[in-house]
Amino acid sequence: MSENLLAVSPINDDQVHLLTDLNVNVFKPEDLDVKIAAADITILYGWKPDIGNKLLNTSNSKLKWIHAISAGVDYLPLATIAKLRINLTNASGIHATSISQSVLAYVLHFVRGLDIARKNQEKHYWETNAETQAATISDYHYVVFGTGHIGQQIGRLLQAFGGHTLGVNTSGHPVKYFDETIALDQLDTSVWQSDVIINVLPLTDETHHFYDANFFNHFQNLFLFVNVGRGPSVDSDALITALKNGHVSHAALDVFETEPLPSNSPFWSIDNVLMTPHNTGVIRHFKKTQLELFLPNLHQFLQDGTFKYNQVDLTKGY
Amino acid sequence: MSENLLAVSPINDDQVHLLTDLNVNVFKPEDLDVKIAAADITILYGWKPDIGNKLLNTSNSKLKWIHAISAGVDYLPLATIAKLRINLTNASGIHATSISQSVLAYVLHFVRGLDIARKNQEKHYWETNAETQAATISDYHYVVFGTGHIGQQIGRLLQAFGGHTLGVNTSGHPVKYFDETIALDQLDTSVWQSDVIINVLPLTDETHHFYDANFFNHFQNLFLFVNVGRGPSVDSDALITALKNGHVSHAALDVFETEPLPSNSPFWSIDNVLMTPHNTGVIRHFKKTQLELFLPNLHQFLQDGTFKYNQVDLTKGY
Repeated sequence: MSENLLAVSPINDDQVHLLTDLNVNVFKPEDLDVKIAAADITILYGWKPDIGNKLLNTSNSKLKWIHAISAGVDYLPLATIAKLRINLTNASGIHATSISQSVLAYVLHFVRGLDIARKNQEKHYWETNAETQAATISDYHYVVFGTGHIGQQIGRLLQAFGGHTLGVNTSGHPVKYFDETIALDQLDTSVWQSDVIINVLPLTDETHHFYDANFFNHFQNLFLFVNVGRGPSVDSDALITALKNGHVSHAALDVFETEPLPSNSPFWSIDNVLMTPHNTGVIRHFKKTQLELFLPNLHQFLQDGTFKYNQVDLTKGY
Repeated sequence: MSENLLAVSPINDDQVHLLTDLNVNVFKPEDLDVKIAAADITILYGWKPDIGNKLLNTSNSKLKWIHAISAGVDYLPLATIAKLRINLTNASGIHATSISQSVLAYVLHFVRGLDIARKNQEKHYWETNAETQAATISDYHYVVFGTGHIGQQIGRLLQAFGGHTLGVNTSGHPVKYFDETIALDQLDTSVWQSDVIINVLPLTDETHHFYDANFFNHFQNLFLFVNVGRGPSVDSDALITALKNGHVSHAALDVFETEPLPSNSPFWSIDNVLMTPHNTGVIRHFKKTQLELFLPNLHQFLQDGTFKYNQVDLTKGY
C-alpha cells in the first residue's frame, strides 16, 4: 500500500520526486476533500491547527505519523496524538546552528560592550578607554539549561572562546561540550553565582514559568539572561521586575509568552533588553534542509514502521 | 651595572618588586630630572611623545630598549630609534583575545541580523519570519588581511563557526587557522568575490590608504568591512562613498584616520555602520597582563641583551 502524505509545510517542487520515487503520494492542503479524503492521509508533514485537528478528529482516519518542522512540539495536542497512537517526529537539530550562533551574537554583544558603543554612537560620543573595560568571554561563567542539540552547539562555541560551561539537564548526566553538568532539581551556587543563563529547555508542565521571581532573586546581579527556548518558560513580569531592580543586568530574548509581542509590552523599550522576533531558528534553504532531515526517517518508516531519529516521547513531550 | 627603567606606562605598586628583585631600578615620569637624569634611563616602558622624544634627543643617552605597550608601533619615531640603534619591543599578542572576540561580535551582529532587530525594536515592530532569513557564518567567505597573532585568533574563531577563511600576508605563506593564504600583492577574485573583509594589517607606508576607492570598487556588494587594524589604512572618504553607493553594505570600525573621531564625521550617523572608539584592544587587568608579557623579555635581556619575542624589525615597522 502506498502512503498518502499531506504537506502543510511546503516541499520544493523540484524535490517532490524524492518522495514519489518511494511510492509516496504527495498532496497539498488544497487537495484535501478534492483529490484525497481526509481519512486517507497517512502522513502529515508539518502542522497547522485547522488541518491537523481535522485529521485527528476524522473517523476511520489512517493517520500514522506527524512530522513537526520545529524542535519544540508543545503547540501540538500531544495527549490526543498519544491516545490515537500516532507517531510524532520533530526537527530537533535543524535549528542548532542558527540558534547557537544567535546566542553567541547576543553574548558577545553585551560582553564586548556593543550595547554601550551603540548608545554612544547615537550621541556622537567618543568614549575614552579609561571609562569602561569590556570583558572577554572567559571572564564569565555560563549556564545552559537544556543540553540537547542546540545546547551542545552553544556549549561548543562558548568553549571555543575559552568560556566555562555548566549544563543543566534532567538527571545531571555528563554531556559533550560542558565542563560540568547538574540536575535540574539540584541547582546550587554554581548556578546562582554564574554570570550568564541561557535557556533552551523544551516547554513542559515542569518548565512553565520555571524562570520566576524566586529564580531571579537568587542572583545578586546576573550579567545576562538569554531565552531562545520557549516564551512561557519565563514569568515575564518577574523578569521585567528583575531587570528593573538589578537582579538581572541584561536580557536577550527571542521568545515571549505572547507572540507577536503586544505593542504595549514593556520588553520593547527596556533599555537593557535586546530582542528578536522568534526568528533565531529561521534558516535559509529551510524547505530543503527540512526535507533532508525527513527523508532518512521516511526510508526507515516505509521499511519497518520505525524511525531513525527524532521520535518524540509523547509522555515527556520532547 | 643595574638598569634604570622609566615606566611611562604605569606598573602596579604591588608588582614593582618583580623588577627590583632583578636589580632593575624603577622610576616614574615625575622622577625625571629629580631622582634620575634623562641620560641615565636605559629602558623605557611604554611611550609618551614628550618624554620619549626627550630621551631620544638627550646627548650621551644610555637608552637601550623601548617597550611599546601596543601591537602597532607606527606612532613611534622608528627611523630615529633605528639610527640610535635602540631596541624596540611591542605587545603583539596581548590584544589578540579581546580584538578577535570583538571581530566575532561585529560579524555575528550583521550576519545574524541584530542590526535589523535593533531597528525594529526601536519601532516596536514585530518582524515576521517570512520577511528576512538571516545567514549563518558558513554562508559567507571571510578574508583576513594580516595573519599575525590577532589575525590567527580571528581565523580560529571563524573556523569554529564553520566559516571559510582566506588569510592575506606579505608572501602568501600558509598560516594556521586559514583555509587558504594569498600574498598582499597578488589579490584576485578569491578576495573580490568574498563577503567579509577584516583588516588587522600594521600601518606602514605600503598600507597607508590601502583600502581606497579602487579597492572597494572591486566589490559588487561586499557584505561587511571590518577595521580593527589602523585608521589610516583606510581612505575614509572612499569607504563612506562605498557605503553609500552599495559597493560595501555594512562596516564595523574600531579605528579611524582621526581619533577621537570628529563630531562632524559622517561615520557617526551612517545607518549601516557600527563603530567602537578604538577600544576593542582594551583589556581588563591591562597593567598586570602587560608586565607578564614584559618580564620574560627582561630576564633574557639582562642575561645577554637579546629578546625572547616581540622585537620589532625597525626596517619593516612591525
